[in-house]
Amino acid sequence: MSSKPISVLITGANRGLGLEMVKQMVETQGPLTPVSVLFACCRDPGGPRAEGLQALAKKHPDIIKIMCMDAADPKSIKQAAQQVASVVGKSGLNIIINNAAIAIRSPFFESTPEEMQNCFNINAIGPMVITQEFISLLRAAAKDSGTPGMSCRKAAVINISTIASSNGLANETYNKWRVLPYRVSKAAMNMMSVCASVELQKDEILCMMLHPGWVRTDLGGPEGELDTHESVEGMFRVMNSLTEKHCGALLNWKGETVPW
Amino acid sequence: MSSKPISVLITGANRGLGLEMVKQMVETQGPLTPVSVLFACCRDPGGPRAEGLQALAKKHPDIIKIMCMDAADPKSIKQAAQQVASVVGKSGLNIIINNAAIAIRSPFFESTPEEMQNCFNINAIGPMVITQEFISLLRAAAKDSGTPGMSCRKAAVINISTIASSNGLANETYNKWRVLPYRVSKAAMNMMSVCASVELQKDEILCMMLHPGWVRTDLGGPEGELDTHESVEGMFRVMNSLTEKHCGALLNWKGETVPW
Repeated sequence: MSSKPISVLITGANRGLGLEMVKQMVETQGPLTPVSVLFACCRDPGGPRAEGLQALAKKHPDIIKIMCMDAADPKSIKQAAQQVASVVGKSGLNIIINNAAIAIRSPFFESTPEEMQNCFNINAIGPMVITQEFISLLRAAAKDSGTPGMSCRKAAVINISTIASSNGLANETYNKWRVLPYRVSKAAMNMMSVCASVELQKDEILCMMLHPGWVRTDLGGPEGELDTHESVEGMFRVMNSLTEKHCGALLNWKGETVPW
Repeated sequence: MSSKPISVLITGANRGLGLEMVKQMVETQGPLTPVSVLFACCRDPGGPRAEGLQALAKKHPDIIKIMCMDAADPKSIKQAAQQVASVVGKSGLNIIINNAAIAIRSPFFESTPEEMQNCFNINAIGPMVITQEFISLLRAAAKDSGTPGMSCRKAAVINISTIASSNGLANETYNKWRVLPYRVSKAAMNMMSVCASVELQKDEILCMMLHPGWVRTDLGGPEGELDTHESVEGMFRVMNSLTEKHCGALLNWKGETVPW
């Protein structure tokens, strides 16, 4: 029995983990396929940093819709939600992966209010506004699924977090990653996500966080412990296994709980 | 044997917990007395909301110095640090209590980017900038103390947090306190504090967080479970017992660990 195709939106889809997610969703038979439509969002779809995504979209024009969205700009999020609504209609949107993020890497004494604000705007407020603006499409998908409980195939918001957001581990890891604005913004995103998960579960929409591992991307740097392929493969496997028990959870790409 | 008098700075000192802290430090013989000088900071020292503090300062003019400081305004923090430096000289400043905070109480779906930013600026960035600007005075106090280890009588930054910042408890408490911007800002402050604690311990300056309990103040509301007197008495007892073991900890007013 083949699964019903799902609709997915991924932010920061032009590079790193986001681009790898798009690739695996349209070019492999994985746990989260088949995909009916994939909204690949980035800030500058026409720019040189989106060339890989553009090439991929050319190969899969029926599935991939490239969209302009800036997580720091609520207006662009509202516009994107209207465009997505016009494509998916009343079957709604099954999955949002809030993957777009910036890493401002200043240590404590060098962090400025502006750095803290910029990181917070994109990494914490962005996913909040996206969830607010797309909520009617997620609700439509949950209703349309006709299945009980919660799952990614039904309706889910997956927020990409990091082990560097863990207060419990920061004491040992701060000296390794002295990146205050990034850590603080992701800790803020975690709390936003847990609160969102309580609201969303009323409509049987799953909301949880994933730590992708320390990945060799622009953001993770060249010393990362795994490549994007392995990380995304792991995260998709975990996403496919999620149920209502995982509302508000923070898991890593292997499905293990990350301490708060 | 009487203890050496300590110097203390308290933000948001004009009302609620802040004002009660000032009171107990100058009018009782408690665990954190005697106080040589107490910098009582608030945004509008001349305004009607600072009348209680003004009256107290009139009674204790040798100890209480009322200062204008806005946690959302880095310039006012820098100026305050210069003023404090000119008073304390090379014995430095023993304790900073970052108590000033605003509570924006919107639930998830009604929270706006502006509310999130305002709360984050005052509750998370404010204590960061204050710690940065006052660091040389804290270092001076740590050096001047001549005692090994860490304690509040030597040099400490105490950040007032909340049980509502706990990710682990948010699942059960969100429906009771549907206050997204406040929760997120305090979760952000926790991470900022843990990172700060790693930096500050190099100079034997203690940094940790306290949950004051659910207190009947303007911020806590009339249904709070304890009054300001009981809360502050408890927090001062806990502060007096702190050692280097408590770097980066989040404890409540009874000294119990609050889960992240």
